[in-house]
Amino acid sequence: MKPLRFAVTPGEPAGIGPDLCLLLAAEQQPHPLIAITSRDLLLTRAAQLGLAISLLEVSPHAWPDEPAPAGSLYVWDTPLAAPVQPGQLDARNAAFVLHTLTRAGQGCLDGDFAGMITAPVHKGVINESGIAFSGHTEFLAELTHTAQVVMMLATHGLRVALVTTHLPLRDVAEAITAERLERVTRILHADLRHKFGIATPRILVCGLNPHAGEGGHLGREEIDIIEPALERLRAEGMDLRGPLPADTLFTPKYLEHCDAVLAMYHDQGLPVLKYKGFGAAVNVTLGLPIIRTSVDHGTALDLAGSGKVDTGSLRVALHTAYQMAENRP
Amino acid sequence: MKPLRFAVTPGEPAGIGPDLCLLLAAEQQPHPLIAITSRDLLLTRAAQLGLAISLLEVSPHAWPDEPAPAGSLYVWDTPLAAPVQPGQLDARNAAFVLHTLTRAGQGCLDGDFAGMITAPVHKGVINESGIAFSGHTEFLAELTHTAQVVMMLATHGLRVALVTTHLPLRDVAEAITAERLERVTRILHADLRHKFGIATPRILVCGLNPHAGEGGHLGREEIDIIEPALERLRAEGMDLRGPLPADTLFTPKYLEHCDAVLAMYHDQGLPVLKYKGFGAAVNVTLGLPIIRTSVDHGTALDLAGSGKVDTGSLRVALHTAYQMAENRP
Repeated sequence: MKPLRFAVTPGEPAGIGPDLCLLLAAEQQPHPLIAITSRDLLLTRAAQLGLAISLLEVSPHAWPDEPAPAGSLYVWDTPLAAPVQPGQLDARNAAFVLHTLTRAGQGCLDGDFAGMITAPVHKGVINESGIAFSGHTEFLAELTHTAQVVMMLATHGLRVALVTTHLPLRDVAEAITAERLERVTRILHADLRHKFGIATPRILVCGLNPHAGEGGHLGREEIDIIEPALERLRAEGMDLRGPLPADTLFTPKYLEHCDAVLAMYHDQGLPVLKYKGFGAAVNVTLGLPIIRTSVDHGTALDLAGSGKVDTGSLRVALHTAYQMAENRP
Repeated sequence: MKPLRFAVTPGEPAGIGPDLCLLLAAEQQPHPLIAITSRDLLLTRAAQLGLAISLLEVSPHAWPDEPAPAGSLYVWDTPLAAPVQPGQLDARNAAFVLHTLTRAGQGCLDGDFAGMITAPVHKGVINESGIAFSGHTEFLAELTHTAQVVMMLATHGLRVALVTTHLPLRDVAEAITAERLERVTRILHADLRHKFGIATPRILVCGLNPHAGEGGHLGREEIDIIEPALERLRAEGMDLRGPLPADTLFTPKYLEHCDAVLAMYHDQGLPVLKYKGFGAAVNVTLGLPIIRTSVDHGTALDLAGSGKVDTGSLRVALHTAYQMAENRP
């Protein structure tokens, strides 16, 4: 069997991404895990943190087939453009950050990596450097020529995918079209099957309006758009329940019998997910031809180099990527 | 000290409200609690449930000053218009249901009751009877000549109040005006002080847009409306934090230091509240000159008379009303 080898991108070098990768390298990983970043950055940060982590340099055509021993981390050295001070953003390193993402994403496409796990980048400083950048997800969609991706957050016992993501609330209702809903649901359904190994995924679908519109009294999108779209998808054999009121859907009666919740918009689905999964949630990009998971937090510039960071989310992101790759047919 | 006497309205007679009141009458209450409904209805339902509850009839000018013993329930007999079959709605009893609410609400205004607790009514059958009715809250606002009320749900360790409630999502952004936000926040602040005994309430305010607008990139309402309104209220001495992203607000870092969360709309705030408080959440109407709490569930017609009902929400509604009345200056 081909070894499952993974790439982790520590992301913004002045943030906590390098710290998290070093902290997790103290633990034995079940698969070879390769950090794509500057070797010097990791060495310096490890010294700042007082961590004794051995860095094992690897490169294309010399990939490891076995996991590194606990206390060691494989590194594909990718040089910085400017030296890094923890907590100090520097636009000169923006291209470096994107280069690490390209190396990881292309490596997944080429079959060198079974999946990639991303620590946070800082959108502001990349845009400030003159490179238009709206996020990891969009960057990887473009790299892999993917027209539509779906954002899903997951934690122990709950997965929440979103029909719309980073839209002003004012624009959400217009964005809920039958076409978009069907496209997103198909991606969610297919990836639950093929990347999560769930043969017949059970999906709970939220309504758009409070009380799922209460029979049309609180909005008609459920009747005019959502129900007909779900009917068409059910006719293809999907197990879809809804549209359900979002305020009662997140209770055991429903959640115990579902594999994922599909929320119509960001703040309908994510507050519960992050409440439940605090510190141990993972962001999974569905619809890509590659496996990609991410932490659900930001760069936390003020904590870089401090040692006071919580590795919970990166740990879940790693293990989710491992499981997805192991489940792949 | 004047006894604190409370009214409970079992609501829809074919639903589970009568069952819940009878089940809770098995427990000793700390204050006199008077069910306003038909004595015959309670007798019949108690027999159906196999419960031995003594009904102690009371009426105006003959109010009890001591709690009923465990296993007994005070009843202010209010006759039905038609006999009741559990689970079978009958529009002929709509006026009866509203009459019990009027008795309870007027009794609070008159000082006979320190507060009222409502079990669910069925809006549909009341409207079907020809009486326009949009809910308990609106009915009591009209009865007490209150221009603006605020809906707050509470469970152990979390209170969530709403700036807008039962509006189609499409209309929410337009409804978030500085005037409304200030009015709602003032009511929330005043009632946390005067009805919950919190001297200096700490309130977390959600943004309207995902990530609270992310500096204007995902909507401008935070910058144009919410922040200036909060600034004006802070100048009056209120402790308000926000606008904060709703998806990260519901985490211990924030919640440990707050007395209430103010959400901009229904499905932004209530999914977490109901997830956390499942089966033990209470709906409190703020802004009324009287104390009113309610269960957070519906009539559950299919469970009426079955004995398979969860008294958790009514128990919390009772105890919340008791605490509010005890805290009142």
